[in-house]
Amino acid sequence: MQIGQLGEFDLIERLLAQIGTGGDGLILGPGDDTAAIAPTPGMLLLATCDCQVEGQHFRLDRGSPEQIGRRLAAVNLSDIAAMGGRPRWSLISLCLPPDTDALFVEQLYRGLSNEFTRFGTHLIGGNVARSDRLILDMTLLGETLPEELLRRSGAMPGDAVLVTGSLGASAGGRAVLDSGGAASEAEQKAVAAHLVPNPRVAAGRAIASTRAAHTMIDVSDGFAQDLGHICNASACGVAIEASSIPISPETRQAAERLNAGALHWALSGGEDYELVLTAPAERVPELVRVVTAQSGLALTRVGEILRPEEGRWLIQDGQRIPLTSEGWQHFGSGSAL
Amino acid sequence: MQIGQLGEFDLIERLLAQIGTGGDGLILGPGDDTAAIAPTPGMLLLATCDCQVEGQHFRLDRGSPEQIGRRLAAVNLSDIAAMGGRPRWSLISLCLPPDTDALFVEQLYRGLSNEFTRFGTHLIGGNVARSDRLILDMTLLGETLPEELLRRSGAMPGDAVLVTGSLGASAGGRAVLDSGGAASEAEQKAVAAHLVPNPRVAAGRAIASTRAAHTMIDVSDGFAQDLGHICNASACGVAIEASSIPISPETRQAAERLNAGALHWALSGGEDYELVLTAPAERVPELVRVVTAQSGLALTRVGEILRPEEGRWLIQDGQRIPLTSEGWQHFGSGSAL
Repeated sequence: MQIGQLGEFDLIERLLAQIGTGGDGLILGPGDDTAAIAPTPGMLLLATCDCQVEGQHFRLDRGSPEQIGRRLAAVNLSDIAAMGGRPRWSLISLCLPPDTDALFVEQLYRGLSNEFTRFGTHLIGGNVARSDRLILDMTLLGETLPEELLRRSGAMPGDAVLVTGSLGASAGGRAVLDSGGAASEAEQKAVAAHLVPNPRVAAGRAIASTRAAHTMIDVSDGFAQDLGHICNASACGVAIEASSIPISPETRQAAERLNAGALHWALSGGEDYELVLTAPAERVPELVRVVTAQSGLALTRVGEILRPEEGRWLIQDGQRIPLTSEGWQHFGSGSAL
Repeated sequence: MQIGQLGEFDLIERLLAQIGTGGDGLILGPGDDTAAIAPTPGMLLLATCDCQVEGQHFRLDRGSPEQIGRRLAAVNLSDIAAMGGRPRWSLISLCLPPDTDALFVEQLYRGLSNEFTRFGTHLIGGNVARSDRLILDMTLLGETLPEELLRRSGAMPGDAVLVTGSLGASAGGRAVLDSGGAASEAEQKAVAAHLVPNPRVAAGRAIASTRAAHTMIDVSDGFAQDLGHICNASACGVAIEASSIPISPETRQAAERLNAGALHWALSGGEDYELVLTAPAERVPELVRVVTAQSGLALTRVGEILRPEEGRWLIQDGQRIPLTSEGWQHFGSGSAL
């Protein structure tokens, strides 16, 4: 059944049946003028929103409705993870063409629900409107202790630069799809990383709880550009050792088949949703231990924060290459659909 | 300059220059992975989101960019008002065609900024994406004391039904625009009410502070339908006296010229963003006094809550007419663009 044949309230009822509402602190869930929650005393409230537009952030011919829903949740969960926070409550604006199949939207909400359940997050509100193409906007609220808040500013010269997991898989997955699809199990892994990123919530909480890190950000625009955000906010330079950047064997294998550069994917591909942090060198072993214990992820040291006048560099085969922010901007020349 | 020629970060910088960020409780504003705020101890957090789609909720040939911005703010502020809350912090998702003029978006933000300043609200975050048509999604956070939270449920048989201000002006203004434009000063007033609704934040706070009301809602879908939401949530009936419904002389004048029904506009037109509340009859004089003193608005008694088995009625010229929810649903048959 097309959603245009359903009333607004019938549609909302169907969607709410797919996804749990409730959770600690919820006073009033969907169905009133606003939701009402009781924030945890002593905690800061974190708030972020991220919009996914069909054709720009996802394609209907690539990935299932569940995957689109999981991706929407993941990109927002990743922002809370990057602050070291605990994701808690979500509101969703759905803009839909009236000929959208109700089953499609239900499956999308099932995907959302999967991610919410994994990360202890609950839907508390939202609204629906009609539009020409599918546009999904999510607001996510989280909480953290004031003394564990991890900003982009505060990196100090001498800090180690660290990254969770591995980089480049999402860009690799996109390239594999562009080439016509996965030719191996390794390439399927890259495609999965692209379609449904894995938000690093557990790692982010583990890092925050050590109170060792000075700054943190997630890799959405691309490692080089996101690291640039830390350098800008902290007024510092940086040197990254190219050979240290963690790239999975699967990503390297995909790059080889497609005659592409795995390092380029890792530096500029974006959408890996790994965490990049800076911390005093002496705290690195503790951070590595805690992240691995609590999230199962590797935490790799890839470089060092410099004084601002020392510049920003990628060190490759002993050569210093200026590290530019070749990330992805939504309206710039690099943002063609 | 078209925004497609600006980078994402340049555009965001321009927009932030138009609108104040900051305010009490703000720990971290736009420019990090999330915003961070310190909720007021002991208060509930209210959260709502409302999306405005070009061609559906506003038209670019009707009203200026400032008015579109003010309207976006107003419809969200109204939801916080309907809970009796104080609006505090906002996040905005902007989906824009790349050929949008940067000046247009700046003016839109100036309109938002006007409303935010009026109501003590601050922008704390957001994001931008490209889309085919302009879509604006706002999340608004507010605060209220737990004992002053005004839900849709809790209306009691014998409660008086009250409404702030007057009804039907927004539908009247839309009809005036459909007819080719305002033919008098009175009609200009109706058009203004349609383009830029006036959120009843001060009245909502005044009502909540008396702790006299049992329920409250704002008139977005239409008085009949929104009152139906209260009746559904409270499991009750209602009788409304048609002659008591407050309709301004300007709205009546517009209806007369256009051969339209002012009462129909008032019952089903929607988008008036007045507040509808129920309260024990003996508290009505106090409520009227407080609302008038603190907001300058009339508060009119229009009917009474009945037991559920007594039904839902409009009393017109002594006749009982079944009160149906002829409101406006986004996907239903009444929602053609």
